[in-house]
Amino acid sequence: MIKLELDRKTIKVAEASDVTSLQNGFYGQMKKGIIYLTAEEALYIMDIRNGKCYDKSGNNYSFNDVASLFLKNKKILARYLTYKDWRDKGLILRPIEEADGNYGRTVLLRYESSKFKIDSFSFEGLFFPHDLITLVDDANVGKELYQRYWIGQFGTYKASHRGRISKLDIFETIYLLRHGNMTLKNCKLKEVEKIAEKHIKFFSDMYLVYEDWRSRGYVIKTGFKFGTHFRIYFPGASPIKTEDKWMHSRHVIHVFPRKHKQLISEWARAIRVAHSVKKTFILAIPGKKSAQSLNPKKPQLDFLLYHRKKGGIETPKEGTPKYLMYSLTEDEYIGGEELARALAECSLSGLEMMVAISDRESSVTYYVIKKIDLPGSEYEYFEIEWIQP
Amino acid sequence: MIKLELDRKTIKVAEASDVTSLQNGFYGQMKKGIIYLTAEEALYIMDIRNGKCYDKSGNNYSFNDVASLFLKNKKILARYLTYKDWRDKGLILRPIEEADGNYGRTVLLRYESSKFKIDSFSFEGLFFPHDLITLVDDANVGKELYQRYWIGQFGTYKASHRGRISKLDIFETIYLLRHGNMTLKNCKLKEVEKIAEKHIKFFSDMYLVYEDWRSRGYVIKTGFKFGTHFRIYFPGASPIKTEDKWMHSRHVIHVFPRKHKQLISEWARAIRVAHSVKKTFILAIPGKKSAQSLNPKKPQLDFLLYHRKKGGIETPKEGTPKYLMYSLTEDEYIGGEELARALAECSLSGLEMMVAISDRESSVTYYVIKKIDLPGSEYEYFEIEWIQP
Repeated sequence: MIKLELDRKTIKVAEASDVTSLQNGFYGQMKKGIIYLTAEEALYIMDIRNGKCYDKSGNNYSFNDVASLFLKNKKILARYLTYKDWRDKGLILRPIEEADGNYGRTVLLRYESSKFKIDSFSFEGLFFPHDLITLVDDANVGKELYQRYWIGQFGTYKASHRGRISKLDIFETIYLLRHGNMTLKNCKLKEVEKIAEKHIKFFSDMYLVYEDWRSRGYVIKTGFKFGTHFRIYFPGASPIKTEDKWMHSRHVIHVFPRKHKQLISEWARAIRVAHSVKKTFILAIPGKKSAQSLNPKKPQLDFLLYHRKKGGIETPKEGTPKYLMYSLTEDEYIGGEELARALAECSLSGLEMMVAISDRESSVTYYVIKKIDLPGSEYEYFEIEWIQP
Repeated sequence: MIKLELDRKTIKVAEASDVTSLQNGFYGQMKKGIIYLTAEEALYIMDIRNGKCYDKSGNNYSFNDVASLFLKNKKILARYLTYKDWRDKGLILRPIEEADGNYGRTVLLRYESSKFKIDSFSFEGLFFPHDLITLVDDANVGKELYQRYWIGQFGTYKASHRGRISKLDIFETIYLLRHGNMTLKNCKLKEVEKIAEKHIKFFSDMYLVYEDWRSRGYVIKTGFKFGTHFRIYFPGASPIKTEDKWMHSRHVIHVFPRKHKQLISEWARAIRVAHSVKKTFILAIPGKKSAQSLNPKKPQLDFLLYHRKKGGIETPKEGTPKYLMYSLTEDEYIGGEELARALAECSLSGLEMMVAISDRESSVTYYVIKKIDLPGSEYEYFEIEWIQP
């Protein structure tokens, strides 16, 4: 039994044997022989290490009695459940406030970038506003766009010799209206943009991402089959080099607009599909980086995570932290701006972000987020990987 | 070359050799030696079978000239692209208007159903409104709820001996407040419901589905790991029988409220995840069946599909149709009510529904939808399977 003493919202441990045991386990903060615990630490000790909590008058406080003292802290449960899971794995984690300086433990993933310019064609398409698709019936143009730039789908998917019509998606349509001298039989650029924006939430954000990659030489097509907004091929990819052996994309892009608030479960769903088809998942946060400056004294993230090392685990005594944990639960919302700010916080610390999502059964799933360097781009891109720490 | 004659919006073929060829291929409708084509048929013949279209004065009409005559028909492109894909597979399809009576080719999937009643416990939980989770710190109650009913997660996920706290999700919380004599330290049932509804769109629809399965003896838990709202275990499932060998669910449930309009790409994403983890995907449409009566003269569906048979294909000449096709494109919306009505149309015809989704590249994905019979339930459930016809 470990005896916890409650005084208002302060929880401390004073008995010598308990103090030693907790100190060895890297719990709490030591001041003059007494250990002061955070709410998550206290709850964990009560749940798992047979801690009992009393106030000065000797009244016993149950787990929920203690938890309810911290109910006003919106993050208390997400933090407690993810704290517990990390501890349950035999790993150490500490309050985020202990983060100190830049640990230099991040990797910047450098993506290639080439210059892309499309020839100025001159041709006409027919736009279908209900489906956001343009058909081009000039077979010469359709074929050239497809073979030289992999723009549109000429003929049939995976069988471009079959049929003579080219189908342009809404991103290709706008791109060609802007840069390829296409006109439409039944619509002007402005109208197309308006229809697309009305139809698809945050469409202009998605288009920004499309043009950003396209203009750096990437081929960017629908990610429908992989449950994401886009899939990409690296500069130089062509559908004709590979028609006998189809070229598989290995990266998918999902756009997370800054103003979009999304259920964690929906956010995670997209990553799941990508994982199941063995694609690298790229999260795109378009638009200008947040002007609000970060306040290192008020971190938005939750814990400083120590991980494994050869033959053991890292500890605050010997070793440095590797990740910052962002603690979430399945039915919460997350916004693009919020996520971008949290990621900026990680950059400052030189630590990678570990998103920890506790589902409705308190089973925790982990995602590591690494920053991508796409030379020339103003937007933020990250690789997200589902891992088991 | 096949010569198509255009007269206003009527497209016909009159030359004898063309007529024979099209008749053998099951295109169009024959009247007095002349074949009349639907828009989709005409476009297909122009795209794939070298059809050329002229008006009475001998003016040539390109593919897009013809297509633009039908632009007011919102479904024209979705229908054309899915028509083409089915034809490209060497299979026959006909206008939906030819559906005649009940073909008796559907299967009703009978699910078992048992009676479930929970004992009236009397205990207190602490509700976390930000995460929609309730903690129960009475270990006896938490353990019994978990072991007897698989309600809540006692201890740790997949390690219930570890820890003494039980976590109830929002559905379990409301279920126990209503039927299990639970009270909350910090909230009343009405407040919890209000918070849940504010937090999760269409929450009450989701709860209806939860209670519907739970009250028939199923265990119903989060489907987070599989990208769906729920996963289920059949009556009799228990987490303790199986703790050494974890019991895997084989069915997931996704709720599609009648009033919800959803992007096709989002709809399909949930099915993808389930498929990738080899789960049967169940679509739930809760709430009362639509009061609007079906109008068989104005079908909402698109085509009558003939499929394969041993050693060949079914045709309108010898054989009967097997499916009704619902033609959609990636960036369209679909509503729960719309889908329910389309499914009712299939029931009337005794044909299964084939959802055909053309993505932005005109690659078509198919899903077959079969009706589930869950005895005693008032709601509609369907199994959806991703297939390659």
